[in-house]
Amino acid sequence: MYLDITKYNFHYIMTSITKGNIETAHQRIKPFIHQTPVLTNASINDIAGTELYFKCENLQKIGAFKIRGGMNAALSLSAEKLSNGLATHSSGNHAQAIAYAAKALGVKAFIVMPSNSPAVKVNAVKGYGAEITFCEPNQAARESTVQKIISETGAAFIHPYDDDRVITGQATCAKELIEEVPGLNVIIAPVGGGGLLSGTSLAAHFMHPDMEVFAGEPEGAADAILSFQSGKVEKAPFVKTIADGLLTTLSEQTLSIIQKHVKNIFTVSDEEIKAALKLVYERMKIVVEPSAVVPLAVVLKNKELFKGKKTGIIFSGGNVDLARFGEWFQ
Amino acid sequence: MYLDITKYNFHYIMTSITKGNIETAHQRIKPFIHQTPVLTNASINDIAGTELYFKCENLQKIGAFKIRGGMNAALSLSAEKLSNGLATHSSGNHAQAIAYAAKALGVKAFIVMPSNSPAVKVNAVKGYGAEITFCEPNQAARESTVQKIISETGAAFIHPYDDDRVITGQATCAKELIEEVPGLNVIIAPVGGGGLLSGTSLAAHFMHPDMEVFAGEPEGAADAILSFQSGKVEKAPFVKTIADGLLTTLSEQTLSIIQKHVKNIFTVSDEEIKAALKLVYERMKIVVEPSAVVPLAVVLKNKELFKGKKTGIIFSGGNVDLARFGEWFQ
Repeated sequence: MYLDITKYNFHYIMTSITKGNIETAHQRIKPFIHQTPVLTNASINDIAGTELYFKCENLQKIGAFKIRGGMNAALSLSAEKLSNGLATHSSGNHAQAIAYAAKALGVKAFIVMPSNSPAVKVNAVKGYGAEITFCEPNQAARESTVQKIISETGAAFIHPYDDDRVITGQATCAKELIEEVPGLNVIIAPVGGGGLLSGTSLAAHFMHPDMEVFAGEPEGAADAILSFQSGKVEKAPFVKTIADGLLTTLSEQTLSIIQKHVKNIFTVSDEEIKAALKLVYERMKIVVEPSAVVPLAVVLKNKELFKGKKTGIIFSGGNVDLARFGEWFQ
Repeated sequence: MYLDITKYNFHYIMTSITKGNIETAHQRIKPFIHQTPVLTNASINDIAGTELYFKCENLQKIGAFKIRGGMNAALSLSAEKLSNGLATHSSGNHAQAIAYAAKALGVKAFIVMPSNSPAVKVNAVKGYGAEITFCEPNQAARESTVQKIISETGAAFIHPYDDDRVITGQATCAKELIEEVPGLNVIIAPVGGGGLLSGTSLAAHFMHPDMEVFAGEPEGAADAILSFQSGKVEKAPFVKTIADGLLTTLSEQTLSIIQKHVKNIFTVSDEEIKAALKLVYERMKIVVEPSAVVPLAVVLKNKELFKGKKTGIIFSGGNVDLARFGEWFQ
């Protein structure tokens, strides 16, 4: 072990999220979410050579952990602000989270989606009664379109991860896992924009400072590992992976929390992701999305590191386009 | 309603299975099986227009209910008989059940499988340490091959469904469902050889004589509906369905129980099975096999019949060949 000086030259943006914030968020969102089950599987334990505990956010409302952060942000708004509705831009699970939160709270949702979003995702958001505005498939168009909607409607913008209220909401997932599995030594979560990972690492830090938190990232969207090493937000060298929930880059806020509380980030290939996916479908009989099994793929690739450690794995979601099964499972 | 005379001209083979037998079987197999969860899903209830309770035997040991009957039969043997091992012929979940039961009880399993069995099924049986003998893919070859093994080894033959001990074991699944969901009005199960269905109907009859029991059968293996109508064991007019667990015909024993205690049998097409399969994967995020969703497809096709009735559905198994997903989910 050696100190990587680059990490310590960086001035951390201090997070203001406290243990109390996470506890308050949990109480606040509880009536709207499932306490998802933690599953174990003897044959996967045999293969991994360690004890794994899977926190099944694929069985969460909207089929992903994102409802935790979205709902916490929405419930943190004043009644007046909330009455104008919620807005975001997303083609993925965060869009469904905001649409669902708005429906549950009886307000409007304005969702900006790139024009090339898959029909299955558009339909899911429509299913929750959200108003969808399509835009060109690039970040600038997303932001300007949502900005226009906000200025016209007064709706509250909720970012998918660069938001304390969202990170705090996502932290409740690890909180439940830690409370349910005594003696857990490690938690590993997938990393995209870092909302789930930063929340997970904060929950672990506050509840069990000795717990190790790791992250899994696809080789085909390897920005977090670069940012973690350099100490500034980096882009991925290339983007090409079936783990379509993990394409976004960190924010300065999520990076600063991750650098402080995450021990390491590991990458896996799409072939390794597919093998982990197959294992979960065959042995556990549950539907998870590719992004969700990235941490399991990391464990299977680095068995020595996890040997003898009770390891919690966050299965982040289960929203899949069934038409892609033919490509994943050959 | 009218009386179908053909049903009453038939001399029933009286079953000797009692309520006490089912209770004893349940106690006997409990240490070896999971008490599987009963799941509900708000959006599928909306679509079906009724309250559905899914008994998830896809999450059972070996991924299917078959372990209940197989284990009960094995545990009913004398220690001396058991020590010679267990034998059966099957290309499906019953083969895994017998292999698993033998492994759990520390004896040998001799499984006869047709030479055209898919590798995924052969490997699953091998995985439990069973000794596999391949035979020509026809009923006569299966029976003569297993007969030869039995005379050489003294192993105990356990039929997949034409066996009181097996039927009694399968009945424990409906017993758990009825105990977990108070006020259930209806149970619907898939029917192949009729082991699960006859067991289910006996459990319902003994525990709640007013409960209605229905069955679902694929149009492409429609033998049980014919047998139910004629009162004698019939063959399907043709066999072609993705519900590969339901290809077998009833036995006189299972038919007699079904005629007495099952209210009706409904058929569904493969397209209807695929639509139900898609719904379960997308909304419930669990892996089930095509045979398992046949009853759900029946409910969705006959909504008026189930309206206002608390309906239990037995998800019989989740053992799928992932390579077929591309064909099922287009």
